[in-house]
Amino acid sequence: MSDAHGRRSGGRAGRQAMRAAATTHADAYLTRTMKPVEIVGDEGLEIILNNADTILAEVGVEIRGYPSAIERFRDAGCDTDGERVRFPSGLARTLAATAPPSYVQHARNPIHNVTIGGDATVFAPNYGSPFAHDLDNGRRYATLIDFQNFVKLTYTSPHLHHSGGTVCEPVDIPVSKRHLDMVYSHLRYSDKAFMGSVTAGERAADSVELARIGFGGDLADRTVMTSLINASSPLVWDATMLAAAETYASNNQATIITPFILAGAMAPVTAAGVAAQTLAEALAGIAFTQLVRPGSPVILGSFASSMSMQTGAPTFGTPEPAIVLYVLAALARRLNLPFRSGGSLCASKIPDAQAAYESAATLIPTVMAGVNFVLHAAGWLEGGLAIGYEKFILDEDQLGMMAVFARGLDLSDNGQALDAIRENPPGNHYLGSAHTLANFEHAFYRSSTADNSSFEQWTEDGALDAAQRANKVWKRRLAEYEPPPLDEAIDEELLAYIDKRKAELPDEFA
Amino acid sequence: MSDAHGRRSGGRAGRQAMRAAATTHADAYLTRTMKPVEIVGDEGLEIILNNADTILAEVGVEIRGYPSAIERFRDAGCDTDGERVRFPSGLARTLAATAPPSYVQHARNPIHNVTIGGDATVFAPNYGSPFAHDLDNGRRYATLIDFQNFVKLTYTSPHLHHSGGTVCEPVDIPVSKRHLDMVYSHLRYSDKAFMGSVTAGERAADSVELARIGFGGDLADRTVMTSLINASSPLVWDATMLAAAETYASNNQATIITPFILAGAMAPVTAAGVAAQTLAEALAGIAFTQLVRPGSPVILGSFASSMSMQTGAPTFGTPEPAIVLYVLAALARRLNLPFRSGGSLCASKIPDAQAAYESAATLIPTVMAGVNFVLHAAGWLEGGLAIGYEKFILDEDQLGMMAVFARGLDLSDNGQALDAIRENPPGNHYLGSAHTLANFEHAFYRSSTADNSSFEQWTEDGALDAAQRANKVWKRRLAEYEPPPLDEAIDEELLAYIDKRKAELPDEFA
Repeated sequence: MSDAHGRRSGGRAGRQAMRAAATTHADAYLTRTMKPVEIVGDEGLEIILNNADTILAEVGVEIRGYPSAIERFRDAGCDTDGERVRFPSGLARTLAATAPPSYVQHARNPIHNVTIGGDATVFAPNYGSPFAHDLDNGRRYATLIDFQNFVKLTYTSPHLHHSGGTVCEPVDIPVSKRHLDMVYSHLRYSDKAFMGSVTAGERAADSVELARIGFGGDLADRTVMTSLINASSPLVWDATMLAAAETYASNNQATIITPFILAGAMAPVTAAGVAAQTLAEALAGIAFTQLVRPGSPVILGSFASSMSMQTGAPTFGTPEPAIVLYVLAALARRLNLPFRSGGSLCASKIPDAQAAYESAATLIPTVMAGVNFVLHAAGWLEGGLAIGYEKFILDEDQLGMMAVFARGLDLSDNGQALDAIRENPPGNHYLGSAHTLANFEHAFYRSSTADNSSFEQWTEDGALDAAQRANKVWKRRLAEYEPPPLDEAIDEELLAYIDKRKAELPDEFA
Repeated sequence: MSDAHGRRSGGRAGRQAMRAAATTHADAYLTRTMKPVEIVGDEGLEIILNNADTILAEVGVEIRGYPSAIERFRDAGCDTDGERVRFPSGLARTLAATAPPSYVQHARNPIHNVTIGGDATVFAPNYGSPFAHDLDNGRRYATLIDFQNFVKLTYTSPHLHHSGGTVCEPVDIPVSKRHLDMVYSHLRYSDKAFMGSVTAGERAADSVELARIGFGGDLADRTVMTSLINASSPLVWDATMLAAAETYASNNQATIITPFILAGAMAPVTAAGVAAQTLAEALAGIAFTQLVRPGSPVILGSFASSMSMQTGAPTFGTPEPAIVLYVLAALARRLNLPFRSGGSLCASKIPDAQAAYESAATLIPTVMAGVNFVLHAAGWLEGGLAIGYEKFILDEDQLGMMAVFARGLDLSDNGQALDAIRENPPGNHYLGSAHTLANFEHAFYRSSTADNSSFEQWTEDGALDAAQRANKVWKRRLAEYEPPPLDEAIDEELLAYIDKRKAELPDEFA
C-alpha cells in the first residue's frame, strides 16, 4: 500500500491503512477463466439481432419530451415522425459501434479500479429499494442511516467490487436533495467505485460535480461513475433518463442503458420476444450516448422478469429470465459491448429458502453467461422493494464462491496431485499427507455464513438458521467499521457544495 | 392411457387411472436441448485421463476379500499382487468400453421408463439418510413410514422421474430385512423405476427376485433396476460392493459405480487430484461389471465434497465440488459412459437459506454439466444424514424449473413474437395483447412453493416462510395420495416371497 492516501500517520490512520491493505487481498473484480456459456447458436442469435433491427426500423422508439434527442437522431439519419424515431436497417448498430468494448471505472482508491467488459465481472450491491429489512426491525422505510450502513458493508466486503448507487432510497431525505447525500456517502464511507444520480439531468450534473471534487478537482476525462439509465418499455425513452444519460456521456462518464422488462406487461411473454425488444430499446439508448459523445463508455443492460399468473406480480429465479439473460449476454458479446444483467434477485420478503433458491438461480446464470456488471449482487429482497441486511451478508458469501469457481480448474503439478496419489497406498486417508497439509488452508472456499458442524454441535450453538447467523455478521462488521482516508480539504469542499445546493433546492418528497 | 394396468374398473381404479393419466403430462425424464457446459478444454481433460491411467498402472486398486474379482482382473490382463490389482496402461479404459453409452431402465408403468445417458437427465430422490426431518417433529430416526411417504411423494411428483432406492433408512426394520420392505414399497406405492439393495450380494439377489415378480415373472433381460455401488476410496473395492455389482451385472441390471470422496480425506484436496482418482476408481469398478457381463449397463458416478477447515466436516454447494462435477461429466462423455453426480446437496440441518443456496449451487451445475442420473435431487439435508419433508418439496420445485430451462429458447414464430411487437405501439402494455393472451397460461414456470404476492398480502396470509408453505404441500400430497394399480396376484407373490425370506433371515440391526 503506498501512502497516497496516508495523510495522517499512526493511530486511527494506521489502523485505516492496515484495513485498506487487508482489503487488497481480494481481487478488484472477478476475472473469468472459462468461456461464457451460450445456450443458443449463432444462427439463433442472428435471428434476434435481425428482429431488433426490424423493430427499430418498423416500429422505432418514442422519444418523449426531449426534442434535442430527436434532432440528434434525425441528423444521424433516422426517420422521425413527431416523437417517433425509426432507425433505417443497421443504423442503430452502426451508431452504437463507437462505444468501447470495455473500460476502466476509476475508484477513489486505485486498488479498487474496476474493468468493465471482456472477461471481467464486477459485483455491485442492491439498487433502488424504498424499504429496508432486518431480523430485528422487520421491514420499514429505508433511511440515510440504512444507506450509509450498506455503503459501509459493501466497502468492507471482500466480495463486492463496487459501491453501487442508490443502494436503498433514503426516504427520510427529500427526493430533490437525497442524491447529494448519496453521492457524498459513497465518497465519504467508501473508496470503491460508485454510481451517480439519474433522477434528473441536474442531479446527474450535481453527481459529476461532487465526483470531480472527490477525485481531487479534476476528472481529466477519467470515467469515475457508471450510472443506471432505464428505458420506459415498451420502446419509449423519456426526458429524465435521456437528460441524465446526456450529462454523463458528455462528461465521458459511463451509463448502463437498461430496458426494465416484466415479460407480458412491457414486452411479449416469450423469451425471444423479450430479448429482441430489449436489444432494440438498448441499441437506441446506446446510439444516443454515442451521438452525444462518440466513444463514451456505455453498458448494454437487461433486466427481465417473468410474471406470476395468479397475481401479475414479477417473479424471480425462474427459468425464463435465465434464458433471456444467457441470450442477451451472447448478443452483447456479438455487439462488442459490456453487458449488465442478473444479480441475486428474488421475490421473497425474507431471507428464507425461497430467497436463496431464487437468488442462486439468478446469480449462477449471471456468472456463467459472462455478465460484466452485476447490479443487485447482494441484498435484494421482495422484487427489489426492500434491501435486507441478512440477505446482503448471505448473498455476499455466494459472490465469494463465484470468484473461486470462476478461477476454474488448477492443472498445475500441485493441482494434479499425481505424486500425492502415487505416494498414498490404497485405503490410507489423505488427512496427514504432505500434499494435504501444504494445501489445506487455501484448498477450499471458506463460507462466512454456512454451518457445517454436526447436528449436535449446531443444536448446542442455538440451532440458528442462516439468516440468524448473518444477523451477527453484519452487526459485527458495522461495529468494526472504520472509514477509508478522505482528505479533509476535499471533505470540506464536498460538504460546502452540498450545503449550497441544499439551500438552493426545494424540499420535495415525491 | 391404455388399460395395460387397468385390471379393475370404475371407482377407486377409475380414480387411479385418471391420476396415472394426469402424471403423463410430465415428461418421463428431462431432455436437454443445450450443449453441456465444459469448463476445461480437451487438453486439460486428456491430462486427467492420463493421470487416471497412470494411477491404475502404478498404484492400482485393492480388491478386499473378493478373490474371484482378482481372478477376473488377472485373466483380463491385469497385474495382481495379493489383493492389489494394477492395470497396464489403457486396459481399464478398454475393458470399460463394452458398456453402453446409454440404456433404458424400465419402470412398472412404461410411461415412466427412463433413458439414462446422452441428452437425458433423470432426477431421483435422496438416498441413504438414517434421519428424517420435518417442521412438526424436527429431526428423528427415519422409519418405514417415512420411507413409504417419500416413495409416495416421489410417485406423485411431476418433477422426479425415478423412485430412487434407499430414500431413507427405515431404521425400525432390521438391517438384514429392510431391503425387502424397501423394494416392496417401490413396487407397491409407485410405478416409477427404482433401485435395488447393495448392502450384500444376497440382498441384491433378493432385489432381483422381487423385481422379477413385480414385473410379471420375467425380466427377459430388461434392465429394471439401477443400483448404487460405492468405492471405499482411496482406491479400494470391497467384497460387499463387488458382490452386489456382480449380482446386478450378471442379471443385466444397471449399477452406478461411484467413488464417494471427501476431498482431503479420501483423495488429495485439489479438484484435479479428486477427478483423476475418481476416474481411476470408477474405471476399475466399471471394468469389473464388464468382465462379469460385457455390455451390462453401468453409470460412471462421482460424489465429491469439499471439507470445512474448522471441523473436518464435509461441505456442500461450494465451488470446488462444482468444478469436479463439470470435469468428470466431460470425462464421462469422452468415455461414452452415462454419468451420475450432483443433486440438491447441502450441509444445513434445516430447510433455510443455507440449504437452498447450497442445493442450487449443486443442482444448477448438475444440469448445466449434463449429468444423466441425479441421485439426491430432492430431500437431502445435513450432508445426507437426514431427508427433509419440506426440503423435498422445495427441491422438487427447483427440478421443475430445470426442466423448463433445459428446453432452451423457443425460436418459433410464436416465440419470436415479432408480429406482437409490430402491432403494439410504444408505451402500450402487452397485458391485453392477443399474443399475451394466447401464451400467458403456459408462458412461465409456475412455482408450487414461491410466494410472489405483495408484502401486505403475504403478511395477511400469515407471513410464512418457504419451509412453512412446503409443510402444507407435502401434507396435502400425502393426504390425497392414491397408489398405482398393482395386480393382486403379483402383490400376493411379492408378500409371500418377503415372508419366506424374513423367516429365513436373522434380525440384525447393524
